[in-house]
Amino acid sequence: MVQDTHITIRPLTPADHAALLSMLLPVFRAGETYTVAPDISADAALAFWTAPEKTVFVAESGGAIMGTYYIRPNQAGGGAHICNCGYITAEAATGRGVARKMLAHSLETARAQGYRGMQYNFVVSENTRAVETWQKAGFEIVGRLPQAFNHPTKGLVDAFVMFKSLVD
Amino acid sequence: MVQDTHITIRPLTPADHAALLSMLLPVFRAGETYTVAPDISADAALAFWTAPEKTVFVAESGGAIMGTYYIRPNQAGGGAHICNCGYITAEAATGRGVARKMLAHSLETARAQGYRGMQYNFVVSENTRAVETWQKAGFEIVGRLPQAFNHPTKGLVDAFVMFKSLVD
Repeated sequence: MVQDTHITIRPLTPADHAALLSMLLPVFRAGETYTVAPDISADAALAFWTAPEKTVFVAESGGAIMGTYYIRPNQAGGGAHICNCGYITAEAATGRGVARKMLAHSLETARAQGYRGMQYNFVVSENTRAVETWQKAGFEIVGRLPQAFNHPTKGLVDAFVMFKSLVD
Repeated sequence: MVQDTHITIRPLTPADHAALLSMLLPVFRAGETYTVAPDISADAALAFWTAPEKTVFVAESGGAIMGTYYIRPNQAGGGAHICNCGYITAEAATGRGVARKMLAHSLETARAQGYRGMQYNFVVSENTRAVETWQKAGFEIVGRLPQAFNHPTKGLVDAFVMFKSLVD
């Protein structure tokens, strides 16, 4: 795997919206990893990813957008000290370390914003590459949701809740 | 515990909004069970409980509203076959079987709507009465979120993910 050392991560701007949608829509249409309706409209997909409670970043290399992630409080009120993130890497950019770079950036951002933990609420168990990446980064599977995901080709499969503490 | 056999459960109507708020706000203000900002406005509380994806019911006895619950798909897309519910019993109506009646009604509704399971995403571990009620009804703790809730008097406590299958 070739690392791309020239990836920079910066906040999303409105000028990125077309490039953002070109990453989001194939993933949502495939319906294999996100619990988003596969026939979601472009407007709704954009509204979902850039909802007011989310801070959105993009990974850029040589002027091209290669990935995006958001960070948000996972709950309001008494649960607002735990954050949640979602990540998508552009199909053409896989294998270049974009996902790991976004993960590292999101953990730094979470700590800087004072979060005490990061939680992924719904990780499709078949998404083994993501599960392994997150486990290597210190996330643990703290919950298993039986047959909670209807995979387009594999049928009903489990989903995981994953969690990483950000305090010592 | 005296059972009230005259409780009826019916869909929420706009005429119930004032009574609904009189149940929601004390619970949200207390900040002990729901991950809602304790200083949420009445309008925002109403919008939260009656969001478009939710179907809302009220428990009524002798013309008085004694409880409310909502049911919604817990996720969109591939997760839409699992539902989620939230319940609130009026303070003055506790100990009359309202909560259990709403629980039974919600499970019937879920089955009638074709859901394959019911999930509670964030059950504060200190809410022992609710945890026990749900365990008796067949829910299992399928996840534990470490110190994910900041309780107003007990500090950081765990939260549970609870799940019940609705298929044989």
